[in-house]
Amino acid sequence: MTLDSCRAAMEEAVTRYLRQLPDNTLNEPVRYVMAIGGKRMRPALTLLAAGMYRSDVSEAVKPALALEVFHNFTLLHDDIMDKAPIRRGQPTVHEKWNQNAAILSGDAMLIHAYALMCEAPAHCLSTLLALFNQTALQVCEGQQLDMDYELSDHVDHDQYIGMITLKTSVLLGCALQTGAVIGQASPEDAEHFYQTGVDLGIAFQLMDDYLDAFGDPAKVGKRLGGDIAAGKKTYLLIRTKELCNAAQRQKLDALLQDTNQERRIAGVLALYGELGIQHETEQLVKHYHDLAMDHLHAISLPGEKKQPLIALADQLLVRQY
Amino acid sequence: MTLDSCRAAMEEAVTRYLRQLPDNTLNEPVRYVMAIGGKRMRPALTLLAAGMYRSDVSEAVKPALALEVFHNFTLLHDDIMDKAPIRRGQPTVHEKWNQNAAILSGDAMLIHAYALMCEAPAHCLSTLLALFNQTALQVCEGQQLDMDYELSDHVDHDQYIGMITLKTSVLLGCALQTGAVIGQASPEDAEHFYQTGVDLGIAFQLMDDYLDAFGDPAKVGKRLGGDIAAGKKTYLLIRTKELCNAAQRQKLDALLQDTNQERRIAGVLALYGELGIQHETEQLVKHYHDLAMDHLHAISLPGEKKQPLIALADQLLVRQY
Repeated sequence: MTLDSCRAAMEEAVTRYLRQLPDNTLNEPVRYVMAIGGKRMRPALTLLAAGMYRSDVSEAVKPALALEVFHNFTLLHDDIMDKAPIRRGQPTVHEKWNQNAAILSGDAMLIHAYALMCEAPAHCLSTLLALFNQTALQVCEGQQLDMDYELSDHVDHDQYIGMITLKTSVLLGCALQTGAVIGQASPEDAEHFYQTGVDLGIAFQLMDDYLDAFGDPAKVGKRLGGDIAAGKKTYLLIRTKELCNAAQRQKLDALLQDTNQERRIAGVLALYGELGIQHETEQLVKHYHDLAMDHLHAISLPGEKKQPLIALADQLLVRQY
Repeated sequence: MTLDSCRAAMEEAVTRYLRQLPDNTLNEPVRYVMAIGGKRMRPALTLLAAGMYRSDVSEAVKPALALEVFHNFTLLHDDIMDKAPIRRGQPTVHEKWNQNAAILSGDAMLIHAYALMCEAPAHCLSTLLALFNQTALQVCEGQQLDMDYELSDHVDHDQYIGMITLKTSVLLGCALQTGAVIGQASPEDAEHFYQTGVDLGIAFQLMDDYLDAFGDPAKVGKRLGGDIAAGKKTYLLIRTKELCNAAQRQKLDALLQDTNQERRIAGVLALYGELGIQHETEQLVKHYHDLAMDHLHAISLPGEKKQPLIALADQLLVRQY
């Protein structure tokens, strides 16, 4: 099994799932948000991990779907909270329908996610539910921290890593561990799968921050500095605030007030350059990549089984988009 | 066990539960909304049903709490959707904090509810989760229908009963069935408990509509006709539209446009009188009360065990507040 074959299998599973949902007002936004797509990365990771233990991964499909429905639920509610008009190039649910539809259909999706997780094999149902409960709550805590931090002037880089860990990385860890548990991995191996996912998730999120400032614009598919223009508190900006001297801080504060976007982006990028932010972020991405690989290597499976996950992680280091 | 002793036990269980919740931004609104109160009716019904089968009902406490947390979650999100400023005499969460806090803390409560339900005894975990999944989704469908119907001019009384069944009654059925299942009732008896709860729930909701127009103002604790003033589509109003002749319909439409609240309330109440709405609604409450009692009597338990539920149902028929 490859990651791509798992993603294709989950794309089909999503289509089948949406087809059997009852036709009612509540499910229209559910169909819409699920069909718009995304990479089906989380459920694919669940299948991939289960597939390292057994050739028949059909028992993993419903729990994998549960994580994809949950992920889309968080996007739906986060978009209301962030007042985001567009997601994946399409109007968000609260724009296309209205806010109440977005709240209520999101609630229904969270319930759908649990109903799917409840179809996990009996031998691991309570283990998977406990993991899912913990993860779902952490994702909410991460979103809360993200909103809190947007209003705070004193967020340090450790707090930022803690926030992205909760908001995005634990779900990747949960996805891998869910597959491993269904494959009846030992508790130690299941835990290593979890940590592999969490560390890769942190590396991916940091790389997102990195590429917005240092990516290849042709490959990223959008102009550089979008986060700077939006005033977003990325790892890069937080480290800049930590490392700059008084003069640089004054310059930074002025730049962040500057309504001329070109000047603002160029100025902040110049400060990143002065402070070695690019190199430092590359090192940190590599650090989390290596942590993930340590956990992956610790799993008691033959090396060739781990190849698709190693390839995914290595792609991360050379990715420029 | 009496209903009151169950309510008191659940009040204590709620207090203990809130005390052990971690202190964070996410849980502040959870504590607030749970502490404001309510009658703890749903979890009390769970304890009461379990108590008909065994003297130690401690295994029922967490699942009962799950239903109370879920109920409060629905109030929290419904209040955002309805733009309600006040709940139980206190500012709603979106008023006291803000809308984002209300959305996200509500999401956390739904997850908390599942985490509590997952602590049900192993012998009935998957049965209770399946029941809870179904019920939770139906409650969302009921809220969606409620919002749809507020915008529609063609809601008949069957649709209205269907909506209140989903929005409020199935959770009462779920509460009783959950207790019965924990008590290891037979599947048939568990189903009768469910139907007892659903039918009582419909009767209670109809009685709410009834008392707003025909209750004793001194005992109801607010002036009559609040629903008429708010233009709410109650059972009474829907039946009035179905039964009135053309002249009465013209009068009704004019009254519903009337901005003079006293005149509007008096006029609509007069129409209710002309059309026999009071008697018809009393009969319908009695009908659902009797259905509930039929299911209760069908349960294979000694009659004295059922006394607290019979008393609750009979109270309903004489209640004037």
